Amino acid sequence: MAAKPTPDKILQIGFGFWASKTLLTAIELGLFTELAKKPLDAAGVQERFGFHPRGSADFLDSLVALRLLARKGTRYANTPETALFLDRAKPSYVGGILEMCSRRLYGFWNALPEALRTGKPQNEAKAGGNPFDAIYKDEAGLRGFLSAMTGLSVGSGAAIAKKFPWKKYRTFVDVGAAQGAVPVQLALAHRHLQGAGYDLPPVEPIFLDYVRSFKLEERVRFHPGDFFKDPLPGADVIVMGHILHDWDLDEKRMLIDKVYRALPKGGAFIAYDAVIDDERRKNAFGLLMSLNMLIETPGGFDYSGADCKGWFKSAGFRQSRVVPLLGPDSMVIGIK
Amino acid sequence: MAAKPTPDKILQIGFGFWASKTLLTAIELGLFTELAKKPLDAAGVQERFGFHPRGSADFLDSLVALRLLARKGTRYANTPETALFLDRAKPSYVGGILEMCSRRLYGFWNALPEALRTGKPQNEAKAGGNPFDAIYKDEAGLRGFLSAMTGLSVGSGAAIAKKFPWKKYRTFVDVGAAQGAVPVQLALAHRHLQGAGYDLPPVEPIFLDYVRSFKLEERVRFHPGDFFKDPLPGADVIVMGHILHDWDLDEKRMLIDKVYRALPKGGAFIAYDAVIDDERRKNAFGLLMSLNMLIETPGGFDYSGADCKGWFKSAGFRQSRVVPLLGPDSMVIGIK
Repeated sequence: MAAKPTPDKILQIGFGFWASKTLLTAIELGLFTELAKKPLDAAGVQERFGFHPRGSADFLDSLVALRLLARKGTRYANTPETALFLDRAKPSYVGGILEMCSRRLYGFWNALPEALRTGKPQNEAKAGGNPFDAIYKDEAGLRGFLSAMTGLSVGSGAAIAKKFPWKKYRTFVDVGAAQGAVPVQLALAHRHLQGAGYDLPPVEPIFLDYVRSFKLEERVRFHPGDFFKDPLPGADVIVMGHILHDWDLDEKRMLIDKVYRALPKGGAFIAYDAVIDDERRKNAFGLLMSLNMLIETPGGFDYSGADCKGWFKSAGFRQSRVVPLLGPDSMVIGIK
Repeated sequence: MAAKPTPDKILQIGFGFWASKTLLTAIELGLFTELAKKPLDAAGVQERFGFHPRGSADFLDSLVALRLLARKGTRYANTPETALFLDRAKPSYVGGILEMCSRRLYGFWNALPEALRTGKPQNEAKAGGNPFDAIYKDEAGLRGFLSAMTGLSVGSGAAIAKKFPWKKYRTFVDVGAAQGAVPVQLALAHRHLQGAGYDLPPVEPIFLDYVRSFKLEERVRFHPGDFFKDPLPGADVIVMGHILHDWDLDEKRMLIDKVYRALPKGGAFIAYDAVIDDERRKNAFGLLMSLNMLIETPGGFDYSGADCKGWFKSAGFRQSRVVPLLGPDSMVIGIK
């Protein structure tokens, strides 16, 4: 006997923007960073953040009910998760991507109906042009974006460090390295590896700051370059994370060809993204990420493992496989 | 040993607005209503809704991965839940509230940081005034709002029909009845009951249409009135659902007093809302609903069972109790 249908799941997903925007607001305002210094009662939070008394307790208690804050007596404190991942003072901070969600994407997604009708991005680049121009135009914006990418990549970087046979290889380059989350995870886990991050020249000081904060500057270098104009530096392994999905099919194929040319025989390409299951039935995050590429880019889209293995084969890779990483991310490994 | 903290839950809630806005968009555009007539493939959906090819499959497959659509071969169809609750042609439609979320609340919630700082609403009434004026100003807006309220109330109405000892009573009035979701549920479940909905005069034709669609016009009447200006009609039981939370404390107490005066000795007051647990630790939806009252109203807030029982006692009710209904809603019953 089938259970009687209820509207619970529909209402839960439909109202999901309430919890989402509440958490995003707390991250954007730095609530978890402040509570990591010292737990505060509602009056203390009001004073520190300039809140009006009306909504403060509801805001804080909502976060308690969502298990994102703990309340002991009248004081609010972080949970183990929010203390570790949402305190800006810790290298484990993953909030950058969520700050970007709060400041940019939440609002842009309100234009999803228009995006579906026009097929065009709904962000700063709505007037046309490359959306990365807006992000790269000043250092504050760029630091924000790169830190956001770290939040999205650090867990996958740690999983790539574990799930790939690094003992067989000595060098790697992370193409589109941003702050260097993945190079740092690989170098921390494998002392024999020498690596580099490759990204646009303005990224260099931000990358080096991050790498130095882990004291890895001897083994993790920076290569400036533009992967649309320049050849890629050679290495035993080339990693490309959350990059292929930004671009249209021709651009994806061009990038894969460029990686192939830069690798030695036997070298490996690790492309990772929120790879969609081949049946396109399970990885909701990957499919929604692809809609996010619709909102953010002129031609980007996420892809299944089968899609990517097909492109790898066309480029000349002699074998490839898909390996799940953390959460929605998988890596597609191609061997030259 | 405690499990090692992971950022999964933080990312899931933080990115929750993606799934939420995807579902809300599908409801707003009438996708489930259309697919209830006939399953369509991606090309059929594109043609029917004027979608660009770029995002269509990602949009539809995201809904499949969220288990809000089924896909057989290349065709998309409703699940049992979306067929029953998101087809506008069925009386079980609960999408009205979610259409309102898509068109109004999702965008207004982007101003949550400002709401927390100012304590002021962030909707159409941002310039001041009563937010209901905007809703009641034309019949299309009013029909939309009232249908939205039905989506939020129909499940609770059915639960109130089951969980209250109706055999002891003969008449009821639902104050702030909107379309009449609760009067209809009560009359359907209990043939001996005679009831009425009480609401502002413009609601009357919309209420009567809804009641007639269930052939209940003999037992469910309409009383026009303004609960701020007029006395309430008498009945054995007075119901007030999703009303008290709209108003500030003085207004809440005034309404409770008015109900007390309208009841006979032994009569019952049923107030239901997303009543917050007394510890304010569990009912995240109720707490977030209270933040929604911050976004939507000048002084409204949701409340705990203990809060409400205190107000009932002050008004003169001799006993009261809290009874959970469906999902986040509970009723607080006061006996005169």
